Order: sequence, then structure tokens, then C-alpha cells
Amino acid sequence: MDSPVRIAATDAHDQPVRTPDLDELYRGFETELLVPLWTEIGDLMPARPVAKALPHLWRWRTLLPMAEQAGELVPVGRGGERRAIALANPGLGGRPFVTPTLWAAIQYLNPREDAPVHRHTQNAFRFVVEGEGVWTVVDGDPVAMRRGDFLPQAGWHWHGHHNRSDGPMAWIDGLDIPFQHYADATFFEFGPDEVDTRQDPALSRSERLWAHPGLRPLTHVRPTPATPLLAYRWEHTDRALAEQLALEAEGYPATVEPGHAAVRYTNPTTGGDVLPTIRAEFHRLAAGTSTRQRREVGSCVFQVFDGTGEVTVGAERWTAERGDLFAVPSWQPFTLATETGLDLFRFGDAPIFERLHLDRSSDEGAGT
Amino acid sequence: MDSPVRIAATDAHDQPVRTPDLDELYRGFETELLVPLWTEIGDLMPARPVAKALPHLWRWRTLLPMAEQAGELVPVGRGGERRAIALANPGLGGRPFVTPTLWAAIQYLNPREDAPVHRHTQNAFRFVVEGEGVWTVVDGDPVAMRRGDFLPQAGWHWHGHHNRSDGPMAWIDGLDIPFQHYADATFFEFGPDEVDTRQDPALSRSERLWAHPGLRPLTHVRPTPATPLLAYRWEHTDRALAEQLALEAEGYPATVEPGHAAVRYTNPTTGGDVLPTIRAEFHRLAAGTSTRQRREVGSCVFQVFDGTGEVTVGAERWTAERGDLFAVPSWQPFTLATETGLDLFRFGDAPIFERLHLDRSSDEGAGT
Amino acid sequence: MDSPVRIAATDAHDQPVRTPDLDELYRGFETELLVPLWTEIGDLMPARPVAKALPHLWRWRTLLPMAEQAGELVPVGRGGERRAIALANPGLGGRPFVTPTLWAAIQYLNPREDAPVHRHTQNAFRFVVEGEGVWTVVDGDPVAMRRGDFLPQAGWHWHGHHNRSDGPMAWIDGLDIPFQHYADATFFEFGPDEVDTRQDPALSRSERLWAHPGLRPLTHVRPTPATPLLAYRWEHTDRALAEQLALEAEGYPATVEPGHAAVRYTNPTTGGDVLPTIRAEFHRLAAGTSTRQRREVGSCVFQVFDGTGEVTVGAERWTAERGDLFAVPSWQPFTLATETGLDLFRFGDAPIFERLHLDRSSDEGAGT
Amino acid sequence: MDSPVRIAATDAHDQPVRTPDLDELYRGFETELLVPLWTEIGDLMPARPVAKALPHLWRWRTLLPMAEQAGELVPVGRGGERRAIALANPGLGGRPFVTPTLWAAIQYLNPREDAPVHRHTQNAFRFVVEGEGVWTVVDGDPVAMRRGDFLPQAGWHWHGHHNRSDGPMAWIDGLDIPFQHYADATFFEFGPDEVDTRQDPALSRSERLWAHPGLRPLTHVRPTPATPLLAYRWEHTDRALAEQLALEAEGYPATVEPGHAAVRYTNPTTGGDVLPTIRAEFHRLAAGTSTRQRREVGSCVFQVFDGTGEVTVGAERWTAERGDLFAVPSWQPFTLATETGLDLFRFGDAPIFERLHLDRSSDEGAGT
Repeated sequence: MDSPVRIAATDAHDQPVRTPDLDELYRGFETELLVPLWTEIGDLMPARPVAKALPHLWRWRTLLPMAEQAGELVPVGRGGERRAIALANPGLGGRPFVTPTLWAAIQYLNPREDAPVHRHTQNAFRFVVEGEGVWTVVDGDPVAMRRGDFLPQAGWHWHGHHNRSDGPMAWIDGLDIPFQHYADATFFEFGPDEVDTRQDPALSRSERLWAHPGLRPLTHVRPTPATPLLAYRWEHTDRALAEQLALEAEGYPATVEPGHAAVRYTNPTTGGDVLPTIRAEFHRLAAGTSTRQRREVGSCVFQVFDGTGEVTVGAERWTAERGDLFAVPSWQPFTLATETGLDLFRFGDAPIFERLHLDRSSDEGAGT
Repeated sequence: MDSPVRIAATDAHDQPVRTPDLDELYRGFETELLVPLWTEIGDLMPARPVAKALPHLWRWRTLLPMAEQAGELVPVGRGGERRAIALANPGLGGRPFVTPTLWAAIQYLNPREDAPVHRHTQNAFRFVVEGEGVWTVVDGDPVAMRRGDFLPQAGWHWHGHHNRSDGPMAWIDGLDIPFQHYADATFFEFGPDEVDTRQDPALSRSERLWAHPGLRPLTHVRPTPATPLLAYRWEHTDRALAEQLALEAEGYPATVEPGHAAVRYTNPTTGGDVLPTIRAEFHRLAAGTSTRQRREVGSCVFQVFDGTGEVTVGAERWTAERGDLFAVPSWQPFTLATETGLDLFRFGDAPIFERLHLDRSSDEGAGT
Repeated sequence: MDSPVRIAATDAHDQPVRTPDLDELYRGFETELLVPLWTEIGDLMPARPVAKALPHLWRWRTLLPMAEQAGELVPVGRGGERRAIALANPGLGGRPFVTPTLWAAIQYLNPREDAPVHRHTQNAFRFVVEGEGVWTVVDGDPVAMRRGDFLPQAGWHWHGHHNRSDGPMAWIDGLDIPFQHYADATFFEFGPDEVDTRQDPALSRSERLWAHPGLRPLTHVRPTPATPLLAYRWEHTDRALAEQLALEAEGYPATVEPGHAAVRYTNPTTGGDVLPTIRAEFHRLAAGTSTRQRREVGSCVFQVFDGTGEVTVGAERWTAERGDLFAVPSWQPFTLATETGLDLFRFGDAPIFERLHLDRSSDEGAGT
Repeated sequence: MDSPVRIAATDAHDQPVRTPDLDELYRGFETELLVPLWTEIGDLMPARPVAKALPHLWRWRTLLPMAEQAGELVPVGRGGERRAIALANPGLGGRPFVTPTLWAAIQYLNPREDAPVHRHTQNAFRFVVEGEGVWTVVDGDPVAMRRGDFLPQAGWHWHGHHNRSDGPMAWIDGLDIPFQHYADATFFEFGPDEVDTRQDPALSRSERLWAHPGLRPLTHVRPTPATPLLAYRWEHTDRALAEQLALEAEGYPATVEPGHAAVRYTNPTTGGDVLPTIRAEFHRLAAGTSTRQRREVGSCVFQVFDGTGEVTVGAERWTAERGDLFAVPSWQPFTLATETGLDLFRFGDAPIFERLHLDRSSDEGAGT
């Protein structure tokens, strides 16, 4: 065993000639908890991002039965907190991280079940690809969850879920767990074992105050870091997308590109992203649409909401259907195409990069 | 008459003894275009704002007939540009300024008439207290105007109006004309004599893109100084206010104070005010409500939209009814009260003061 | 006397034909405190800013003797507060306003005299074109005033001045008095009749904390609306300008234009303007330099600090010397030229326009 | 081998009873790249941050000789780029990461040597604990490096170093390499093999333009994400700290706490941190000073610049001397104490947390 210093094959030509003195120096480095740049630079400072996370697609038709089986075998309660099953990116060593920064899980609640109340610094949201019957209760405000709804919930707010219906319900949770875990920023606190209200209103109080276009209640007139609106309903999202495509059909400019409509969910107090670390969007491709190839610094996850399409991420290519989720690692080129129309929910970590001035995309012609 | 230096009565005791030498110095000041502080300080630096503008109320039942008569006698066209009749605050020397910073006018359009296209740096809006049938066309986007609608239009955008209907229509224009006139910031440009589209859609393109709660089209993802949303419809405003009062009735905190609901119109790209110089709000008082007395730096105008109420501004007190407008000068205390319920539209110059860190209100216990 | 409605000559062609009915309508307008737009639009909405303020130059050799005479004849004390003599723009009706928004005055203090302590919402600064010996005491911090120093002092801070020396001292005060007077934003409060410290340190505490390039004390790590630094010393300003010209001489790009160096005084907590309503800069022209003609929305005042130059503002042209002050009204073209070198202090109201998105300059090719 | 699902000991009590069905489900999870929350939550969502990084101190008297030896054995040149030896936190698996987000290395340049020109998205700085003779050339601007100087250099700017002297020189590099590596945000580009200028001015052009307190050149009047000032000289830092302690001795409030002075290096265009991801500060403890215990979300590194002190981080305690570096992981309590006086340079990742609203400190009484 000559040297503890790891040298990547691609860097071999750059390395100093190994001599006994150098080997001894390298051993000294190891003893003293030091690592030279010149042996690591190929890995640490590549010409462009080389994500360890891999493009991957998870099938809804696989996920949902497993969640159902977990519903039979695994109780939900204090300690485990949630019957949530996370996507583990194959490039990330078996950790429950769909990308280095993001968590995506299917969560499942049996009829009449409660997921206990807690709070944590992680920013979170739920997105419902099918089903209904569960209310998530955020700071005492019960928020109905229905197909197509996007339900953000900023860090450090109390929340629990309860299923008011006689059927089970599954949905998707997205959080910045991996990022906060990496950055050692996590705080967590237990609340009551059951949610503190059994009310099941169609609209949460947050919506009654905030879900009026362009209007803000005078209750709070300062910006808040995360959105005070706890539900973005499918009917609004669907209408916004339909209007964009209708305008394009009438001859006005397309929103993103021909046949491609999209909305970003925003914090009405700032116009910016709903959550400090997470961006969420909904994309609709008209029948016969292909998107231009694009790559971006930062990672994201798509879930097919409706329709069928061909997805290409890096060297991977899949036909994706309702409920399927796929991960797009940083700087991997991706395209979407559909013959019959495709609706996709998307979330990603773009706010982290934009706020730190590290955002970059292929649109800028930069980098690659 | 010896001295040109004006001395306010209240300052007399502070003035230096008049001598021939002092009189000669004062004459020298006048010749050299100089004015001493010590003779002016009482006017220039009062202990608290002493607005020259006066509290005043204009009756809709007076305004509307005059506008109708102007509709008979005064053509609308290039040069005069608009058949608009402005409120002239009695404290401001006959100028068409409802307050030092704000313009408020009733505008009137006969059936099938056009108001020609132009653009100007002044920020503007329209508010409709009754009637319909006119479309304002902003940068080619026709925007229907109906009772209860608020229609902002940022400076330097092309706009004209046309009346598609067989009846006349009147509405209120609000602008920052006095402020920009004072500050010498005004640019103005003529466009075509007629609006460039005769379309009469129920919804403008701006609404189809932007009037979805919490959603922004990916067309533009940067903040804009003024709102891209050209119409804030009554149905949304009404629902938002009704929900606030309903929540209060259910036991949740009132938005402003007991019985007092209010929304602010906002720029969805920032969450801030719709226009860089103008704030707009809608207030609803439930039957039997009196507001707490309040004073603020900066001026504003209210228009009663519905109901009847008692209004007190400074030493003035009026019973105000539908369509009536009243001005609240800077730092004048004001209260609203109603036995049967009162809906009011409000606009003011608060963004000017907030952006310059000159805002202050009686809530802060400051000043007075 | 037929009609109370004022019609500008230039608008005459646009006016409706006068008939008895129209005259009666116009009389009705007057009675009801209404003014039509169509008779006023020429004045209110010109194609480009038509400032009432006029270009004007005040000679230091006139100002200073008058201030000296005031020093003999007018005591300084409570009530009058300051022995300050303000420049009254000839276009502004005899008011002590150098432009619509700005106040500029020469202030004069006899040996051992005090100007009493007060505070006001107006933002203020002092600039010293010659002399020394006075300390301005801001919130208890004594700040020496010397030739070339710029001494900002944000609204609502206590301040008084005292002359420690055996000679008199004169300097320039700049404030936003006219703006706050116009906008009814003024609060004022008396403090002690004498300043609360007789200390005469060379450096104020604010400088000891804040005048280190790029460094901020951890005392305060949040932005403040106005600068916490109470003195910008001539030695720093002079060196910064000398370096800019030296760099240009070494072949690097000129800061503003060939031969023209300039610095802006900034708030170190934001990098922005020193005061919310006032911008301050210092400009140096090398011998043989002429500036490009420029116009800007907003007004400013220059004071010659050193050297001699030819100044053109609108249709006016002067040879300006040390101490001379001249006003540049909004959108008036101006140029500076010097054969032997020229140093100028400048202050203006640009922050008002930038924060309200009303700034515009001839550089943008806009407007005119 | 029963189950692939990893279960932390502390969570064992929360886990569902293992049955053949559950084991099969767990095997299915593994096959499908899924991981349940309930087995991971203890690690992922602790009650407060549990940093993997450990408190650790590296001795300058160890580092410097190793760097010198590397100077003999390892050439510096294209490919390896820099003779930099990084501190590898013992909790981070041998990676050259001093904390999860930060890189700290000693860099060494022999007499007359060049480190080749390159650029990268990583934000960087150098800090000089001793020595001189090297110029770092940033975008063609040669910047002298001397004891006590802090030299930031924003991402994506060209830079190389050259040693003009006859002696070697060592200094500290700080970068956000681990963060950008984690987040897959890295771009890198090679420039020339030698720096493009051999000039050795005492002051860089950036300083000649920007190092004047409170003054900005009119060259650029917009905020930039990172500082344009390339050197913060020791003389300024030292004077700022001396003044803070002198003011405290005169009876004014201490900057941080009794006996503890500190400055933050700032971007003069914003007043905020010098780099988007890195905060840098300098702290001075007077003789006989102990700091209050403090903990913060986010990690940092201190280097002793002068003096000797007792450092406590978490359960570790060291006597630290000139040049010694120690890491403070997230939420680890730390205190500093000195009998004879202590000067410390500090850098950390606080901007990441503040911009994402994840900052928290023990001062807020939050968390544990």
C-alpha cells in the first residue's frame, strides 16, 4: 500500500512523479488531516457540473401498490411520523434523496387515520396526483387535498394530516430534507399526536384570505419568506394553462415555446418562489409538442399529472404516464415530447442557486 | 413698505429687531434671490404636517350631471384627449389637484365614442362606480370596464378608450399628475386618434395570463415596477371582502379591526403596490362599524362604492353615499362609521412616502 | 368676465366653441371645485418636462458678505434656529427653494456661537467650501467640519452646531425641505438650546466606526435607510478623484468620460445613496475637459469647490468660480468645461425619481 | 440477511414489528430504489442540527512545514493548478472539506513561481497570516498580498498568482468548493499558463477605484453580487478594530460584547457580504476577554492572526496560536478567551443560510 492519496485516473498525467519523499509527504498529509488539491481537482472542479445523481424514473404503478402494502403493514404514528416512502436516486448511495437537495416521497393514509402533528425547519409541499379525502392541518387551518392541488407549507409551521374519508389516499411530498441535512440546518419538534381540528371545509382559511388574484388582505402587508397561501387549486392551474394555450391559438406569443404553457406557483407577498428553497411549476404540452433541449444548474423532479409523453434526460429515455416521477440532475439536458398532450408538475431547487448567484442555464449559452 | 421679507404672525416673536441695517440686508437678499430661514421656518418646518389641502367631499349626484352635460357640449378628441373633469381641492388654489400629489376626475364617454390613444409617464388607474360598455385598450389589449372593477395602467403604456355600447359611461380616473407636474417628470406622446382594436372580450389578455391566484405565467419571471394585470374584477374583490367578514364572524381575527375588512390591490410580480406612486385598496365596513381614528403622512381619496356612512376628516363631517368622493390630506385624522354597511374604494400616495422612508402613522404613536 | 376656466394660449385651438351653455357649465365647475382636463392638459401633460425652476447661478462673492452681515445683525437662537440664508430660484415665486425639491443655503456661525439642538424629518447635509472651526453634534457625536468635507445627517436625528474657534465659519446646507413641505411630511422637535458636548475631536465616533473602506462594525449588520457615517473627509474624496484621473492617464477607461472623474457619496450599509431623498457626488474635470451635454429628470445643484469653468445650463452660460452655486432644473441640458481644471460638489434629488421609477436621462435616448 | 433497510438504534422502538411480509416489502423498496421515512427520520430530522463535521484544530507549525516540503516535491502548473493543501475535517470521510460547505487550504508559491490563470464558479478569497511578495492577478489587475490582507475574488473571474520575490510565500485560500461540489454548480475554465502582467504595484486598480470609505466611483452604480474591491488591507482592518476598542475604553458601547471588537468585510456596492456564499470577518479580543458562548446554524473557520487564546468548540478545547485554524461545525457552541489579547480572522457560510431564511443562532433563544 503506497499512498493514501486518491488519484482519479483522468488526472494521472498531471500528478508529480511518485518518490519515497512524496509518498512520505502524502502519508503526513493523511496523518494531519490534509488533502492536496492537485490530486482532487478533477473531481472537485470539473469543467461543468458532473452530477452524481442519475436521471431516473419511478413508475406510479409500482409506487402506489407498495404504498398500499405499507398501509397494511406499517402503522403511522409518533416517532415514525409519516407513512412516506422516498425515492432514492441510484447515484446517491441508497440515501432517500431524489436529488442531492430534494426529497420526494409517496405518502399514504388509511381511512380515518391521522398523521401526528409536528414542525420542522424543512420546507415542504404536497402535490396530489389522484384521490381526495385528506385534510392537512397547518397551524390549525384545515386544508383539503384534491387531485391537482399544490399545497406548500413553509418550514417551522405545525402540521398534521387526517383522512376524513372511508378510502385511503396517497399523494406526493416534496421537501428540502437532503439540503438541510447536508447543511446541518434541521430543527424538529413534536406536536400533538392527533390534529387539533376535525373540520373539513372545502376551502382553508388561508385561501379565503389569500386566493384572490392580485389582492392581499390588509392583515399582513409585509413580505414573508414563504407563501401564506396553503393551497393552489387545480381549477386555477388548469384554467391558467388553458388560457395560455388559447392565447397562443389566437396568435399571441407562446408562454414558453410553441405548444408549451407553464405557470410558476408564487408567494403572493413577493411574487417570488413559494418556498425559500423550492420552486414549483406546472407545465402543459399541447398534443404534438416537443420542447427544446435545455439544461440548468440545479436539479428538479417532474411528475406526470395527465397524458403520456416521451422524456429524455441525459442518456435516458422513457415513456412516462400518469403518476410517474423522474429526476433531472444538474446540467443534464432534458426534453419532453408528446403526441397526445401532457400535463406535468415540476419542483426543483432553483431558488437556492438564484439567491446565491449560481444559477445558469443553457439558454445563456454559457458553460458547456 | 420697507421689507420684502414675509414674516408669519406666529413667528413674529422670534424675529430680530428691525433696524435700517437689517432692512437693507433684507432688500439685498431680495435682489440676490435669497431668503432667510429664520423668517420662514414656521411655515417650512412645522411641528407636524400642516397640509394646505383641505378635507373636502364631492357629491356624485353633482358630478355625474355635470359630466353628462359636458358629454353634450364638449367633444372628445386629439388635443383635449379626454372628457375628464378633475376635483380641485379648495386648499390648492384652484388647480385640478385633489391632493398635492393626486389627480381624481370623472371621465365620460358617449355611446360609440373613442378617446384617442396616447401615453404618458403618469401612472393611472380607472375605477368604475357604475355602468359598463367601455373598453380601455392598453398596448393593444382591450379591457372591459364594469362596476366595481379597478383598472391600473402604468406610466408610458399606450392606451385609449372606446365605448362599444349604446349608452354613455362614466368612471373615475386617478393619476399622479400633480406629483409628476410638481417634480417635472412628465413625458407625453400622441398615438393614433382611434383605438387600434374593436374587440370586446369579457376578459383582457392580461387577465387571462395573470388573474390566477398565486400563479404567474413563465412569460415573465422578473419583477416589473408596475402590475402587468390590467383589471382587478369586482367579483374577486367582493368575494375577498366577504370572506374576511365571514372569518371574523366565525371567530377569527378581524383583518383591520372589528367589522372592518380590506384588501390592497397588488402587483403580482412583487406583492407590492400596483403602481410605483399609487396605492389602491378596497374597504368594507359591516353594519354598525366605526373605525378607529387614524392619521397618516401622505394623502388619499375615498370613493363610496355602496352603502351610506358618516365620514369625519379633520374638522369636517359628512354623510357619504354611493359615488361620493372625499379627500384626506396628510396627517388629518379620519374615521368612518356606518349603521347599514359601507363599501369604499381608496387610493393614495403611500408608496411615495414608504419608498423614501417618510411614512408615518398615528399607529406608531409618533409625531403629533 | 365670461369664464373662470383658464385656457393656455397654446391650447386655444383645441378648445370647444364657447357658447352660453358651455360658459354656464364652466361656471358650474368652478362652483363645485372642478376643473376640466381639456383646458389644462397643455400645462399638466407636456411632451417633456417644462420646469418652472430656472437655471440660475449665485456668486459666492455675493453670498458670503451677506452672510457676514447677517452675522452682525441677526442673532442665532431658539425659534429662528439657524442663521441660514437660502437660495430662491427665480422661477419659484420667491420661495426659498433652489429647485422644487431642494433647499440650499449658506449658514454662518460667529466665533463661540451655538446653533440650538433640534430634529426634523427633513434629510440634510452640510458641505464646506472653506473654513473650519465648527463641530456639528449629531445625536451627541461631535463632527468637525473642514474644507472639502461632506457631512450628511439623516432625518429625525438630533443635531446642533457650535463654533469652537475665534473666527466665524460659513458653509452650505442642503436639505429636502421643499419636497417635504410640498408632500406634507414634515415633523419637527426642539432639543436643548445648546449642544450637549463641547468636545472637539478630529474624528467623530461615526467615522471611527464606519470610515474604513469595505469594513463594517458588527454593531449593526442591517441596512439603514440613511448613512451612519457622518463625515466624508476631503482627503478621501480628493484621493479617490486623483486616482481615477491617474488610472485614465495610465490608459485605463475614464470613470465618466475623458478627463472627467467622479465619486458618489454612499451609505455603507447599502451601497446606495447617503440619504433617502438626496444624492451627493463630487466631480473633477482635468484641465482642458468639456463634458458631454446631458439632461436628466430631476434637479440638482452644483457648487464649485476649486478652479474655474464654463457652465451651460439650458440657455444660460456662466463662468463659475470657487464657491459659486448653480441650479440645474429637470431636463435642462447642461455641460461643464474648464481650461485649467475644475472641482465641483453636486447634490440632487435623483433617489426620489429612481425609487419611483421616474428616472430618465438623455443617455437613454428617451423622451426629448 | 434479513432486511436492507437501515434502522438507527435510537429509532428501534418506533419501528413496526418485523414480519415476513414487512421484510418482503422492504426488499421491494430496495429493488425499486425506495426508502421509507420511518426508518430514517432519526437521522434526517433530528431535533437540532447534528453535524457530521467535527470541531478540529490544525496547527500552523504543522501546516507550514508540509507546505514547504510540497514546495520542494510538487511542481505547480497546468492541471494541478495550485500547490494548495486542504484541511480535511475528520468527520467528513477524508474529503478535503473543512466543513460541509467550505474549503480551507494553505497555498505555497516558491520564489519567482507562477500559479497558472484559470477561472471557476467557486467563490474564493485569500488571507495572509504572514509573508509577502506574491501578486494575485484578477482579470488583469495585480493585487499585492501582505500579512493581514483579505483578498476576495468572486466566482468566474480569471486569476493567477505570481511570486515576484526571492522568498517563498504561503497563505490561506478559502472557497465554497464543497458547497458547489455538493450542489453540482461548478464550471471551470483554463486561462494562460502564466499571469498576463508582471507589474507589482502596491495598490491594485480595484483599490484605487474602490478603497475610499463611503465613496463609489461613477464607473458602476449598480449593485454587483460580489465585491469589486480586491484587497482589504491590514492597516484599515487594524485601525477599525483599534478604534472600536478605544471607543469602548472611552465609555461607549462595545461592538460585540465587552472587550470584543469585530468588523465584517463587505461588498461596497451593497453593504452585504463580500461573496454570495461566504462571509468574512475579523475579530479582536482585548486582553482578559472571554466571549459569551454562542451557536449558529452554519459552519465557519477561524484562523488565529496574532496572540494566544483558549478556544472551546463543542467538547473540544485548545490553546490556539498564530496561524492555527479551527473549524466550528453547525450549531456547535463556541467560546473564545484570551489573557493577553487575540486577533482572529473568520470566514463562514452564513450568507447561504440567511438568503434561504435558514439562519438561526442561540441569540434568538430558538431551537434548543
